[in-house]
Order: sequence, then structure tokens, then C-alpha cells
Amino acid sequence: MTLSKPRGTRDFLPDEMARRRLIESVFRKTVQNWGYGEIATPAFEELELFTLKSGQGVIGEIYNFTDKGDREMALRPELTAPVMRAYVNEMQSFSRPIKLFYFGNCFRYERPQKGRYREFWQFGAELIGSNKPEADAEVIALAMKMISAVGIVGDLHIGNLSVLRILLDQITNESAVSDQIMRYIDKREYENLDAYLAELSVSTELVQKVHKIISLSGKDGFSAIKNAREIVGDLPALLSFEKTLTLLAAYGITDYTVNFGVARGLDYYTGIVFEIYADGLGAQKQICGGGSYNLISLFGGGDVVSTGFGLGFDRIMEICDLPVEKPQTVVLISKPETQSIGIEIAEKLRPRVSVLTDLMGRNFKAQMEYANTIQADYVLIVGEKELESGLLSLKDMKTGEQVSLTLEDLIFKFSSLSK
Amino acid sequence: MTLSKPRGTRDFLPDEMARRRLIESVFRKTVQNWGYGEIATPAFEELELFTLKSGQGVIGEIYNFTDKGDREMALRPELTAPVMRAYVNEMQSFSRPIKLFYFGNCFRYERPQKGRYREFWQFGAELIGSNKPEADAEVIALAMKMISAVGIVGDLHIGNLSVLRILLDQITNESAVSDQIMRYIDKREYENLDAYLAELSVSTELVQKVHKIISLSGKDGFSAIKNAREIVGDLPALLSFEKTLTLLAAYGITDYTVNFGVARGLDYYTGIVFEIYADGLGAQKQICGGGSYNLISLFGGGDVVSTGFGLGFDRIMEICDLPVEKPQTVVLISKPETQSIGIEIAEKLRPRVSVLTDLMGRNFKAQMEYANTIQADYVLIVGEKELESGLLSLKDMKTGEQVSLTLEDLIFKFSSLSK
Repeated sequence: MTLSKPRGTRDFLPDEMARRRLIESVFRKTVQNWGYGEIATPAFEELELFTLKSGQGVIGEIYNFTDKGDREMALRPELTAPVMRAYVNEMQSFSRPIKLFYFGNCFRYERPQKGRYREFWQFGAELIGSNKPEADAEVIALAMKMISAVGIVGDLHIGNLSVLRILLDQITNESAVSDQIMRYIDKREYENLDAYLAELSVSTELVQKVHKIISLSGKDGFSAIKNAREIVGDLPALLSFEKTLTLLAAYGITDYTVNFGVARGLDYYTGIVFEIYADGLGAQKQICGGGSYNLISLFGGGDVVSTGFGLGFDRIMEICDLPVEKPQTVVLISKPETQSIGIEIAEKLRPRVSVLTDLMGRNFKAQMEYANTIQADYVLIVGEKELESGLLSLKDMKTGEQVSLTLEDLIFKFSSLSK
Repeated sequence: MTLSKPRGTRDFLPDEMARRRLIESVFRKTVQNWGYGEIATPAFEELELFTLKSGQGVIGEIYNFTDKGDREMALRPELTAPVMRAYVNEMQSFSRPIKLFYFGNCFRYERPQKGRYREFWQFGAELIGSNKPEADAEVIALAMKMISAVGIVGDLHIGNLSVLRILLDQITNESAVSDQIMRYIDKREYENLDAYLAELSVSTELVQKVHKIISLSGKDGFSAIKNAREIVGDLPALLSFEKTLTLLAAYGITDYTVNFGVARGLDYYTGIVFEIYADGLGAQKQICGGGSYNLISLFGGGDVVSTGFGLGFDRIMEICDLPVEKPQTVVLISKPETQSIGIEIAEKLRPRVSVLTDLMGRNFKAQMEYANTIQADYVLIVGEKELESGLLSLKDMKTGEQVSLTLEDLIFKFSSLSK
């Protein structure tokens, strides 16, 4: 009988974990330098948190369960709703803006396929309490800087849902209807969209406006905005969008596509929306999605706007090839007579370098073979001869060079290497 | 309507997360310097993994659920079983010993109480493939070093189950019976133990031996082992135990209690067992438990012995008061006319220091107030006058001192501070 990991999940072994921790640490350093503080929320939440946000339809893809107290729980499918719930519970009195980041696992129940896992990781940031273009620009710039910090060239697409919402408000005041329209747009199902709009007896003029807006896209953001203004009039959101683009230029971000068809398929986005794509493993893939949204009022916390994004950590790991620097490893070789003194020496070196002593009762030759097998950087020989002379033999396994050093010199050597 | 976090779980806000990440990083550095590599396993596993290890009785305390594919799943209650499952699935061909560490959340369904949470964190290490005293000593020493690295004085208790097992083998060959006896011993329910042994018609002599062994405890480990030898004879396990104590002395660990009554309440431990306690918040609390065990054969992976431990991360956080060094924070103050250049300057400083620019459309005075509110270390003023003169004003918010610097000098200043 052999047990295995659950379908669609993964074990990460040490080499892979070292890669993941490296990327995490680059992201972590970046968000901290922008003044974001970390938040962690529970792995499961009340199911209602996610159905409130995304509707009952989301349950089919959620790991939900009834706990022993008969409460409906869900393994979190994403982290924005939990962070906003935590804001409502615990952070309403904090001075604004509140700048948070998170890195955690999320869960979805779906047929596993290449690159899609049932347990996956998201690294994200949320900026709570500002509806200004300064906030929109910072959030987009931060996402782009994080991606470039790990060596990935991101292809940025920015939209603004205020424009579509103006048109939707002319079509319907039922949120279920506008959600359905948004979903067709997000999935680019334009035939279904047209059939649905015809069903609703929407005027030809209005249908044409919707199509004009969602096909409005271009590298020259300012002229795309100008064109939008000709279709829907001089909205304040368009002025704010222009300001956002001006600020992005100050961040050095000038290569992007403004696309009024970016709908993000999520009904709680209110203004700016953006997606970042990257090349890797063949096709171009989305590695980031974000925008400004209002979940806090939905969760009972007043009318507070937020802007944020989530990075698909697993997809980034697929694309990213930052080299991992392995820690320097010393295998310390001793004999039964010098074992205890060997352990003492290992302890003196350990604050500075990774030291392995024999744990298998291996003889001298087998210990040396082990050092070769694990590709140790150095072998340190602690035999009786070495102890008598006070000079330890250190062999560099890459060059083959062997030197005799006092313990003090050895400590000094690894102190300078670990800088 | 206000949603809240599930009962018995916690949100960790930025100040607390910074404390947790600090302790994690000290632990991480320590295990890496001992040559342990990180492993991560899924948050949920097949329920059978845990019932195989701990019996059906464990289900009452587990977050188990049936997934949409009708499989019985469990949120992991601990991490040793998942790591051993991963060994069986993926690491059998690795060269030994295999040295792994993990840091992850675990779940238990029980009535929440002070210091006991339904979602809690464990930091642990597992050494796979050696049954030598060298392995036992390293694992105990590593646990003690990790604890002292975060400034906690641990009270170490070491036992050896081989001795009790010898006696149990004379009482019964049914594992359910010996498990029950172990449970009474672990919980120190000696009246229940005696009643149970009487029920089994165990000879008075054997009952006396059991009591002698479980009350055998003392600071002088070698004489405790000598006493055990007088009760159960000259077992190889006792010789190995002596060797373990000799090696612990080489690690500088001489203050501990050898206690043959340490049973750990878990039937899969085979030889050495240990527990570490610490003072804090009134009573003495267990912060670590470990020992050598054989789960791999139970999971279908051959007869491979392991030794490991888990540190109760949340309890350690309660006790530990390592000071967190906050990252240096600069609030950059600009006016509408200098906003873009302010962003460019912020970007130049950000690799070296945390820089916050205004995101709220605040005027000069309100930006200054914000810097005070968040207790920024510095305020950097980027006004028109500063741009004209090429000298930026940097105010040290602690000393009140204000200096004028070129951008190059500013970058240099924060480069040296971030060392």
C-alpha cells in the first residue's frame, strides 16, 4: 500500500524550494521598499465570504466543506476577499492609505491540467483607501517592477471599467444582467454577447457603442482615451485615466496597451483594471491581474476603495530562471577518536557556513565519497594528525587544492566568504 | 452584515508578521547551516495518511472533508506524516542521510483556548536514513540550538522508548493494548494504568518494573541509564543512549533530564524521544517534541528509520521577544508640479530604502502629518526650490536635523545605511 499526494497538488523538494524562496525574497524586498507590510489570513474562511464576492456560481470550483460545528467553510480560492475581510474586522482605524502584501496558497477544485494546480500560490498587494490616479499608477508600477525584478518582461494591458459601466447602466439596472454581459466580454464570446443584447432589445446604437468600446485598444494610451471620450463623453474617470498614464511614465512605464475590452470577469472591479502577460513555455500567459474594486462596503465596512493585484506565483516559477546560489557546504570528516572534537569544530564554523558531520557511522573513505556525492564545496579533515599539529586540512573540491589552516584561520576564511 | 474569521483562527497584521518572519529567518538560517533543505507538502492530504499513523481515534480532532470527487481528505494536523509520504513517493533514491526541514500551517478541530489555535504553525526537521546515536544527538542538538538562537532557554527532557517497549513486549503482543498503556503513561494517569494492568493480570513484579522505569529520571543521565540497565538488563539501546549523551556534550549540551517516563503518546516512536519546555506566560510549556520513529515502512517504503522534531511556532512566538528591526522609511513629499520628478527620485532610492510617495492627493502640510503619523525615519522634500537648486532637503524625524543633499549623495547615504 502506497499513499500519494492528492490529485492536482505538488510536493516541493529542496532544490525547487530554494528556487521558490529566491523569487519570493525578491518580491518581498520589492514590496517592502514600496512600504507595503505583510498580512496573513487563515487558509480557510466561511464560504459566504467568497459567494458574497463572486456569487453562488463560484461554489463549483471551491474546496468547500462543512466543519464539525456545521459551518460552511471554504479553502480560500484567492486572497483579496480574506484581506478585505481582515480590514473590516481589524484595520478600519489604521491611517490611510493602508499598504498590504500577502504570499499564500490558494485552492480551486478543477480538473488538473498542465500548469493549473488545485493548490497554487499567489503573491499580491492591496492598497486600501485611495481612489486617486496616484494609487492606480503605484499599484500598476509595483506589479511591473516585481516582474522585472525577477527578470521577466511583462506585457501590460490596462483598461478602465468605468467606461463600460456607463454603457451598461443605460442597458440595465439589474446587476445579474450586467454581470452576464461582463462575462461574455471577458471571455471574448461576442456572438453570445450580441444574442444576449438582442434578447434584451438593446438599441442598435447602444450595441454599436459597446462594440466600439470593447474593441478600443492601442499602444498610444492617450489617443485611445480620446477615442473613448468621443463615444461616451467627457467622464471624470477618463481624466483620471490620463493622469494615471502620465504618472506611469514617471515610473518609467511607457510600453503598454490601453484596452477598454479588459473586463477581468469579476463584477466587483470599479475603475482601472490591468493584466500582465509574459512569454514562456510556448504561449503567452497571464501572470498578473488587478484593478480597483470595492469589496469593503460589500463586507460591511463602509465605502472604501482599494486597488490591488495578484501575481500567479506558479506561472512565474515556470518562466523565471534566476540562478539560485547554493549555500557553501563543508563536509567535516572525522574518525571515532576525533568525533567529539569534530563536532565542536563544526559548531564553531556553523554560524558562517553549512557544515555536515557523519551521521551514518561511515569510515574515512565512505565519508569522502559522501562529500563527492552531495557535491560539497569543501572537505575538512579532522584526524589525529591534524589535532596534534593544530592544523586542519581543508580541501577545495572544485579545484582539488588542499590547505592546512588553524581553526582561527578557518573561521576567518568562512567569515569573509559569507559576506 | 459583517463577516469574521473562522473560530480559532487568526489574522496576522504587519507588525506581528514582521516578528514571525524574523523568528522564521533565524530558524531557517540555523537549519541551513546544519545542511537541512526545505520541503513543502500540500495543505491537505488523504485522510488515510493520518489514520494509518495515529489510528481512527484521531479523526475527531481532524479537519476532514469529502471532496467533490468523493475522496476523504484532511487538512494536515501535523507535518511528519506528509514529509514521510513525500519520501516514499519521491526521495527513496536520494543519498542518505536525507536532511529536511519544513515550516507550515497545521490544523486541528478542538475547542479553541488560550494559546491553542485551530490553525497553528510548526517548524520542524526530519533526518531520514540513520539509526545511529550520531543522528539522535544531531537532531536533539539542532532543536536546542534553534531555540537558543531566538533567545529562549529550553529545558530538555530525553527518554528512550526501547526500554519501555521491552517491558510491554513481556505484557502483550497486541499493539492496541500497548498503545493504551503508553497513553496512560504519557498522560501520567498512573491509577488508570494500574487498574488496566490489573485487568490484564500482569504479574506484580512486571508492574513494579514498569513503575520503576517510568519514574526513572535525573539530571545525571549516565547514572539513570545505569539504573535502567539494572531493571531491564544490558540492552544495545542503552549503549546507544550513552553514546548519544557523550555526543551531546560535544555540542555543548550537558544540562538536561534523562526521563524514561517520556512516552510522547504516539505509538510510532521507536527509540529516543525528547521534549523541550520553556518558561513563559506563567506556566512552563512544551515548545518542542521529537524522537526517532518508523513511519516509512508503514507507508510502504521499506524499513528506514528517521529522527525528527517539531517546534510549536506559535508558542515560541508567545515567549520570544527578539527585537524586530523596522526597515528605514522615507516619506517623499512633493507638490503637484514636482510629483513626476518625485516619483523618479523615489524609484532611484527604492533599491536601498523604503520610500512612500503621496497617494491621497494631500497637500504639503498633510503629507508632513502623515509622515509623523506613520513614524517615518526621514522626510524628503522635493519642491520647486529644491529642484532649482539641485539640493534635496532630508529631515531626520528623530533628531529633527535637516540637511541638503544632491540626489547622488542621497543615494550614497542610503546605500551605506542599508549595509
